[in-house]
Amino acid sequence: MAPLELPSAHHHICNDNITPDAPDVLYHLGLSYSKSNCCEVASIFGDVKFFVCGGSAERMKNFAHKIAEKLQIETPFGYALAPIGSTSRYVIYKVGPVLIANHGMGMPSTSILLHEVTKLLEHAGAQNAVYIRMGTSGGVGVAGGTVVVSSEGLNHELRAVHQIPILGKVHERVATLDPAIALEIAATCEALGLPHTIGKTLSCDDFYEEQGRLDGAICEYTNEDKMAFLQAAYDAGTRNIEMEARMFAAFTHKLNIPAAVVCVTLLNRLDGDQITQPHSVLESYDERPMAVLLEYIKAKTTEM
Amino acid sequence: MAPLELPSAHHHICNDNITPDAPDVLYHLGLSYSKSNCCEVASIFGDVKFFVCGGSAERMKNFAHKIAEKLQIETPFGYALAPIGSTSRYVIYKVGPVLIANHGMGMPSTSILLHEVTKLLEHAGAQNAVYIRMGTSGGVGVAGGTVVVSSEGLNHELRAVHQIPILGKVHERVATLDPAIALEIAATCEALGLPHTIGKTLSCDDFYEEQGRLDGAICEYTNEDKMAFLQAAYDAGTRNIEMEARMFAAFTHKLNIPAAVVCVTLLNRLDGDQITQPHSVLESYDERPMAVLLEYIKAKTTEM
Repeated sequence: MAPLELPSAHHHICNDNITPDAPDVLYHLGLSYSKSNCCEVASIFGDVKFFVCGGSAERMKNFAHKIAEKLQIETPFGYALAPIGSTSRYVIYKVGPVLIANHGMGMPSTSILLHEVTKLLEHAGAQNAVYIRMGTSGGVGVAGGTVVVSSEGLNHELRAVHQIPILGKVHERVATLDPAIALEIAATCEALGLPHTIGKTLSCDDFYEEQGRLDGAICEYTNEDKMAFLQAAYDAGTRNIEMEARMFAAFTHKLNIPAAVVCVTLLNRLDGDQITQPHSVLESYDERPMAVLLEYIKAKTTEM
Repeated sequence: MAPLELPSAHHHICNDNITPDAPDVLYHLGLSYSKSNCCEVASIFGDVKFFVCGGSAERMKNFAHKIAEKLQIETPFGYALAPIGSTSRYVIYKVGPVLIANHGMGMPSTSILLHEVTKLLEHAGAQNAVYIRMGTSGGVGVAGGTVVVSSEGLNHELRAVHQIPILGKVHERVATLDPAIALEIAATCEALGLPHTIGKTLSCDDFYEEQGRLDGAICEYTNEDKMAFLQAAYDAGTRNIEMEARMFAAFTHKLNIPAAVVCVTLLNRLDGDQITQPHSVLESYDERPMAVLLEYIKAKTTEM
């Protein structure tokens, strides 16, 4: 794989108030930065080249252990991998050049993590870290178990923009992801023999009504309405539905951060709503984005 | 306190597809319902009278232990309180008539929990359970440590409606909370000597830009812009800002579920953005909504 063409600037924040002199409490991480600990922050986080996040804390802990094994990063005798900072909101691990965290469910929770991790990496002087979200999703016209590498995040109008109300006024941000990284990750899927596609990802603020499921506590539409909506999404290039990609894409695009979203589908929503596959099958699906990213990061760090 | 006037119907879902005969996987809770376990579901969850949720798993575990003590529900010898179902997304406890869960951060995460818990209580035949969210928030014109009991949840236009795109079309739902319960909880604060107010709550999908903070990874407005926004919010009756109340209010209002939101403020946003109080002070604030709800639930269950 060719090395990524990365932007030369390493300043990935857009806020003049954040300066090396100003102390900064990263409240939800349970970490803080100040002039008195700036060297420590730089020595701990300055070498981060990948930031990998996903919804569930368990999955990310699992990934942290696997990446340590894959990159042959030895745990000192008598020690074990342990989360960094506070674990009351997120669980964060640092394994060699890889920072790993769970972002919880939904764009708001993901947003807080992205703001605080990005400030942390800025304080540490980390350069051009690649951000990757991995997760699960509902497929649209693709079978359960397919790895979907997102080209962009769509809103409910099937447009690749993320709307954010700032001081009461709605702003629109482009929600596209890095096409070069998507191609490289798709090539990694191919090499591993995993079913995959590059496609658009519809991101919703709800699992039930917004995603057109028939099995929420509230449902005021018919199966025909739902199928028409999913078919329209498919026709517009949507291949999966989840709850984070759009915000993740908009944030990283705005800050010129190279980024990718890699989700496995747990089912094909054109066939149904409930996730009824046996646990073992779902678990094997769950491991696919992980397997791909382990290979991808291994290859990239070997190049470095 | 007078007993609540509760609606007589106990059906709090609005979906004809959810029937006693149809199996139902509550995917994110790690629980499921079917005709073969319906008696078990009813015997475990049928007596739930309060559903109390909040952001952090630690806080809710703490609350579960405290409510057991308060209601004098003895733990059988040789046992300990343990979470129900899967803990990979939410942590759920059942203590006597109180169901307790963490909802994570933000409205999407809260929404999934509300859909699945409401279906669970419906399957169990629980009647008129009161839903209460407790949490932390930024104050607007009130000092840190104030308990704000929400009258309604506001959107970025400072309107008490929650917009939800369903099958690509935006719907608006009224986002008001139960005024009788709010008054009773305010009276409980008064009795405990805690600073409190009933006020409107602005709910945002982001901690930084949407809330007008100057310390995010992105900030493209001035302190003057921010102060004008916060002042306008204050003038419209906003007393705190958080990330869940509006969706919580809209969901419960739509389903005729009696509900309240009780949040302590960690700071007064008219004075600053960063949460810099010592941990011990923040912890003492954190315990205030808990203290209020322990008293409130104790009084209510004694009446029953």
